[in-house]
Amino acid sequence: MPIELYSDEYFMQEALKEAQKAFDADEVPVGAVIVAENRIIARAHNLTERLNDVTAHAEMQAITSAANAIGGKYLNECSIYISLEPCVMCAGALAWSQIGKVVYGAADSKRGFSIINHTVLHAKTKVIGGVLASESEQILKAFFAKKR
Amino acid sequence: MPIELYSDEYFMQEALKEAQKAFDADEVPVGAVIVAENRIIARAHNLTERLNDVTAHAEMQAITSAANAIGGKYLNECSIYISLEPCVMCAGALAWSQIGKVVYGAADSKRGFSIINHTVLHAKTKVIGGVLASESEQILKAFFAKKR
Repeated sequence: MPIELYSDEYFMQEALKEAQKAFDADEVPVGAVIVAENRIIARAHNLTERLNDVTAHAEMQAITSAANAIGGKYLNECSIYISLEPCVMCAGALAWSQIGKVVYGAADSKRGFSIINHTVLHAKTKVIGGVLASESEQILKAFFAKKR
Repeated sequence: MPIELYSDEYFMQEALKEAQKAFDADEVPVGAVIVAENRIIARAHNLTERLNDVTAHAEMQAITSAANAIGGKYLNECSIYISLEPCVMCAGALAWSQIGKVVYGAADSKRGFSIINHTVLHAKTKVIGGVLASESEQILKAFFAKKR
Protein backbone atom coordinates (compact mmCIF):
# COMPACT_ATOMS: atom_id res chain seq x y z
CA MET A 1 0.00 0.00 0.00
CA PRO A 2 1.44 3.38 -0.92
CA ILE A 3 2.17 5.80 1.88
CA GLU A 4 -0.19 8.74 2.07
CA LEU A 5 1.28 12.19 1.55
CA TYR A 6 1.95 14.04 4.83
CA SER A 7 0.98 11.05 6.94
CA ASP A 8 3.09 9.98 9.93
CA GLU A 9 4.55 7.21 7.78
CA TYR A 10 5.45 9.74 5.09
CA PHE A 11 7.50 11.88 7.47
CA MET A 12 8.95 8.83 9.21
CA GLN A 13 10.36 7.78 5.85
CA GLU A 14 12.21 11.09 5.80
CA ALA A 15 13.57 10.41 9.30
CA LEU A 16 14.70 6.99 8.04
CA LYS A 17 16.57 8.65 5.16
CA GLU A 18 18.46 10.62 7.81
CA ALA A 19 19.14 7.39 9.72
CA GLN A 20 20.60 5.96 6.52
CA LYS A 21 22.98 8.94 6.28
CA ALA A 22 24.15 8.19 9.82
CA PHE A 23 24.62 4.53 8.85
CA ASP A 24 26.70 5.52 5.83
CA ALA A 25 28.87 7.73 8.07
CA ASP A 26 29.40 4.83 10.51
CA GLU A 27 27.27 6.48 13.18
CA VAL A 28 24.54 4.70 15.17
CA PRO A 29 21.75 5.06 12.59
CA VAL A 30 19.11 7.32 14.08
CA GLY A 31 17.48 10.14 12.15
CA ALA A 32 14.94 12.85 12.84
CA VAL A 33 12.92 15.48 11.03
CA ILE A 34 10.81 18.29 12.45
CA VAL A 35 7.68 19.30 10.60
CA ALA A 36 5.58 22.48 10.77
CA GLU A 37 2.44 22.78 8.68
CA ASN A 38 3.45 19.75 6.62
CA ARG A 39 6.81 21.28 5.77
CA ILE A 40 10.09 19.77 6.98
CA ILE A 41 11.91 22.59 8.77
CA ALA A 42 14.80 20.54 10.20
CA ARG A 43 16.60 17.32 9.32
CA ALA A 44 19.33 15.70 11.37
CA HIS A 45 21.04 12.44 12.11
CA ASN A 46 23.17 11.18 14.92
CA LEU A 47 26.69 12.62 14.82
CA THR A 48 28.13 11.61 18.19
CA GLU A 49 31.24 10.05 16.62
CA ARG A 50 32.02 12.71 14.06
CA LEU A 51 31.46 15.56 16.52
CA ASN A 52 32.99 13.60 19.38
CA ASP A 53 30.04 14.71 21.48
CA VAL A 54 27.55 12.58 23.38
CA THR A 55 24.95 15.34 23.07
CA ALA A 56 24.92 15.24 19.24
CA HIS A 57 21.86 13.01 18.96
CA ALA A 58 19.60 13.53 15.94
CA GLU A 59 16.83 15.06 18.07
CA MET A 60 19.09 17.60 19.81
CA GLN A 61 20.40 18.89 16.51
CA ALA A 62 16.91 18.92 15.00
CA ILE A 63 15.53 20.97 17.92
CA THR A 64 18.30 23.56 17.58
CA SER A 65 17.86 23.66 13.83
CA ALA A 66 14.06 23.99 13.96
CA ALA A 67 14.30 26.84 16.49
CA ASN A 68 16.62 28.63 14.06
CA ALA A 69 14.21 27.97 11.20
CA ILE A 70 11.18 29.40 12.93
CA GLY A 71 13.03 32.11 14.86
CA GLY A 72 11.61 31.04 18.22
CA LYS A 73 12.66 28.44 20.71
CA TYR A 74 9.24 26.87 21.37
CA LEU A 75 8.00 24.23 18.97
CA ASN A 76 4.36 23.90 20.09
CA GLU A 77 3.11 23.87 16.51
CA CYS A 78 5.67 21.32 15.33
CA SER A 79 5.97 17.55 15.18
CA ILE A 80 9.19 15.55 15.43
CA TYR A 81 9.64 12.22 13.67
CA ILE A 82 12.45 10.08 15.05
CA SER A 83 13.41 6.63 13.83
CA LEU A 84 14.15 5.46 17.40
CA GLU A 85 12.42 6.24 20.70
CA PRO A 86 14.17 9.27 22.26
CA CYS A 87 16.48 8.78 25.23
CA VAL A 88 16.02 10.65 28.51
CA MET A 89 18.26 13.53 27.41
CA CYS A 90 16.35 14.04 24.17
CA ALA A 91 12.97 13.66 25.85
CA GLY A 92 14.05 16.29 28.36
CA ALA A 93 15.05 18.61 25.52
CA LEU A 94 11.74 17.95 23.73
CA ALA A 95 9.95 18.83 26.98
CA TRP A 96 11.72 22.19 27.16
CA SER A 97 10.79 22.83 23.51
CA GLN A 98 7.09 22.15 24.29
CA ILE A 99 6.89 20.32 20.96
CA GLY A 100 3.34 19.47 19.89
CA LYS A 101 3.82 15.87 18.76
CA VAL A 102 6.49 13.19 19.06
CA VAL A 103 6.34 10.28 16.63
CA TYR A 104 8.94 7.54 16.85
CA GLY A 105 9.69 4.28 15.09
CA ALA A 106 11.36 1.50 17.04
CA ALA A 107 11.06 1.35 20.83
CA ASP A 108 14.29 1.50 22.84
CA SER A 109 13.72 -0.82 25.78
CA LYS A 110 17.10 0.01 27.32
CA ARG A 111 17.56 3.74 26.85
CA GLY A 112 14.15 5.03 25.81
CA PHE A 113 12.46 7.70 27.89
CA SER A 114 9.36 5.56 28.42
CA ILE A 115 11.23 3.22 30.78
CA ILE A 116 11.01 6.08 33.27
CA ASN A 117 7.86 5.99 35.32
CA HIS A 118 7.44 9.76 35.25
CA THR A 119 6.21 12.17 32.63
CA VAL A 120 9.39 13.49 31.08
CA LEU A 121 7.74 15.14 28.07
CA HIS A 122 5.57 18.24 28.26
CA ALA A 123 2.03 17.42 29.45
CA LYS A 124 0.50 18.65 26.18
CA THR A 125 2.81 16.69 23.87
CA LYS A 126 1.08 13.95 21.89
CA VAL A 127 3.16 10.76 21.56
CA ILE A 128 2.88 8.06 18.91
CA GLY A 129 5.29 5.12 18.87
CA GLY A 130 5.84 2.22 16.46
CA VAL A 131 5.54 4.05 13.12
CA LEU A 132 7.61 2.10 10.55
CA ALA A 133 9.23 0.43 13.55
CA SER A 134 10.50 -2.59 11.62
CA GLU A 135 12.35 -0.40 9.08
CA SER A 136 14.00 1.45 11.95
CA GLU A 137 14.94 -1.77 13.75
CA GLN A 138 16.32 -3.22 10.54
CA ILE A 139 18.85 -0.44 9.98
CA LEU A 140 19.92 -0.51 13.65
CA LYS A 141 20.36 -4.28 13.56
CA ALA A 142 22.39 -4.04 10.35
CA PHE A 143 24.62 -1.44 12.00
CA PHE A 144 25.33 -3.44 15.14
CA ALA A 145 25.81 -6.65 13.13
CA LYS A 146 28.47 -4.83 11.09
CA LYS A 147 30.17 -3.64 14.31
CA ARG A 148 30.46 -7.13 15.80
CA MET B 1 36.39 30.51 56.83
CA PRO B 2 38.43 30.68 53.64
CA ILE B 3 37.63 28.17 50.93
CA GLU B 4 40.23 25.47 50.44
CA LEU B 5 42.02 25.34 47.12
CA TYR B 6 40.59 22.70 44.75
CA SER B 7 37.77 21.82 47.13
CA ASP B 8 34.19 21.39 45.89
CA GLU B 9 33.41 24.88 47.22
CA TYR B 10 36.38 26.27 45.31
CA PHE B 11 35.14 24.96 41.97
CA MET B 12 31.54 25.82 42.80
CA GLN B 13 32.64 29.44 43.17
CA GLU B 14 33.85 29.23 39.58
CA ALA B 15 30.46 27.87 38.50
CA LEU B 16 28.83 30.78 40.34
CA LYS B 17 31.02 33.23 38.41
CA GLU B 18 29.56 31.70 35.25
CA ALA B 19 26.05 32.06 36.68
CA GLN B 20 26.80 35.74 37.27
CA LYS B 21 27.75 36.10 33.58
CA ALA B 22 24.36 34.62 32.67
CA PHE B 23 22.66 37.05 35.07
CA ASP B 24 24.46 39.99 33.50
CA ALA B 25 23.30 38.83 30.06
CA ASP B 26 19.69 38.57 31.26
CA GLU B 27 19.71 34.78 31.11
CA VAL B 28 18.44 32.50 33.86
CA PRO B 29 21.60 32.50 36.00
CA VAL B 30 23.02 28.99 35.96
CA GLY B 31 26.71 28.28 35.48
CA ALA B 32 28.90 25.19 35.19
CA VAL B 33 32.54 24.24 35.06
CA ILE B 34 34.11 20.87 34.27
CA VAL B 35 37.30 19.91 36.06
CA ALA B 36 39.94 17.31 35.23
CA GLU B 37 42.89 16.80 37.57
CA ASN B 38 42.08 20.03 39.39
CA ARG B 39 42.16 21.99 36.15
CA ILE B 40 39.06 23.69 34.72
CA ILE B 41 38.74 22.39 31.17
CA ALA B 42 35.31 23.91 30.38
CA ARG B 43 33.25 26.88 31.54
CA ALA B 44 29.75 27.69 30.43
CA HIS B 45 26.58 29.48 31.40
CA ASN B 46 23.00 29.27 30.32
CA LEU B 47 22.45 30.85 26.88
CA THR B 48 18.93 29.75 26.00
CA GLU B 49 17.77 33.29 25.23
CA ARG B 50 20.79 34.49 23.28
CA LEU B 51 21.02 31.29 21.24
CA ASN B 52 17.24 30.98 21.05
CA ASP B 53 17.70 27.32 21.90
CA VAL B 54 16.15 25.37 24.77
CA THR B 55 19.11 22.97 24.68
CA ALA B 56 21.71 25.67 25.47
CA HIS B 57 21.86 24.94 29.19
CA ALA B 58 25.20 25.51 30.93
CA GLU B 59 25.80 21.79 31.40
CA MET B 60 25.15 20.90 27.74
CA GLN B 61 27.64 23.45 26.52
CA ALA B 62 30.16 22.43 29.18
CA ILE B 63 29.94 18.76 28.15
CA THR B 64 30.54 19.60 24.48
CA SER B 65 33.39 21.94 25.40
CA ALA B 66 35.07 19.46 27.78
CA ALA B 67 34.92 16.71 25.16
CA ASN B 68 36.67 19.05 22.75
CA ALA B 69 39.28 19.91 25.38
CA ILE B 70 40.20 16.32 26.15
CA GLY B 71 39.69 14.99 22.63
CA GLY B 72 37.33 12.22 23.73
CA LYS B 73 33.64 12.13 24.38
CA TYR B 74 33.69 10.27 27.71
CA LEU B 75 34.31 12.29 30.86
CA ASN B 76 34.86 9.48 33.39
CA GLU B 77 37.85 11.25 34.93
CA CYS B 78 36.08 14.61 35.17
CA SER B 79 33.81 16.39 37.64
CA ILE B 80 31.13 18.91 36.77
CA TYR B 81 30.18 21.74 39.13
CA ILE B 82 26.78 23.28 38.45
CA SER B 83 25.17 26.08 40.41
CA LEU B 84 21.71 24.47 40.09
CA GLU B 85 20.63 20.84 40.14
CA PRO B 86 20.62 19.57 36.53
CA CYS B 87 17.31 19.05 34.73
CA VAL B 88 16.35 15.73 33.14
CA MET B 89 17.86 16.69 29.77
CA CYS B 90 21.20 17.62 31.33
CA ALA B 91 21.24 14.60 33.63
CA GLY B 92 20.61 12.42 30.57
CA ALA B 93 23.52 14.08 28.77
CA LEU B 94 25.75 13.65 31.83
CA ALA B 95 24.78 9.97 31.87
CA TRP B 96 25.91 9.54 28.25
CA SER B 97 29.19 11.30 29.11
CA GLN B 98 29.81 8.84 31.98
CA ILE B 99 31.09 11.77 34.02
CA GLY B 100 32.82 10.78 37.25
CA LYS B 101 31.28 13.28 39.64
CA VAL B 102 28.35 15.72 39.63
CA VAL B 103 28.39 18.50 42.22
CA TYR B 104 25.51 20.95 42.32
CA GLY B 105 24.48 23.93 44.41
CA ALA B 106 20.79 24.66 44.86
CA ALA B 107 18.23 21.89 44.48
CA ASP B 108 15.56 22.31 41.79
CA SER B 109 12.41 20.84 43.28
CA LYS B 110 10.43 21.42 40.07
CA ARG B 111 12.77 20.55 37.21
CA GLY B 112 15.67 18.76 38.86
CA PHE B 113 16.53 15.22 37.76
CA SER B 114 16.19 13.87 41.30
CA ILE B 115 12.39 14.25 41.22
CA ILE B 116 12.46 11.23 38.91
CA ASN B 117 12.30 7.98 40.76
CA HIS B 118 14.76 6.28 38.43
CA THR B 119 18.51 6.41 38.05
CA VAL B 120 19.04 8.87 35.24
CA LEU B 121 22.78 9.36 35.76
CA HIS B 122 25.40 6.70 35.05
CA ALA B 123 25.56 4.11 37.86
CA LYS B 124 29.19 5.00 38.63
CA THR B 125 28.66 8.77 38.83
CA LYS B 126 29.13 10.23 42.31
CA VAL B 127 26.60 12.97 43.18
CA ILE B 128 26.95 15.74 45.75
CA GLY B 129 24.22 18.35 46.18
CA GLY B 130 23.94 21.50 48.25
CA VAL B 131 27.44 22.96 47.77
CA LEU B 132 27.19 26.77 48.20
CA ALA B 133 23.46 26.29 47.70
CA SER B 134 22.48 29.60 49.28
CA GLU B 135 24.74 31.60 46.95
CA SER B 136 23.17 29.81 43.99
CA GLU B 137 19.64 30.41 45.28
CA GLN B 138 20.40 34.05 45.91
CA ILE B 139 21.37 34.82 42.34
CA LEU B 140 18.35 32.90 40.99
CA LYS B 141 15.99 34.74 43.34
CA ALA B 142 17.48 38.08 42.36
CA PHE B 143 16.96 37.21 38.69
CA PHE B 144 13.31 36.21 39.03
CA ALA B 145 12.59 39.18 41.31
CA LYS B 146 13.96 41.46 38.56
CA LYS B 147 11.76 39.74 35.96
CA ARG B 148 8.52 40.24 37.91
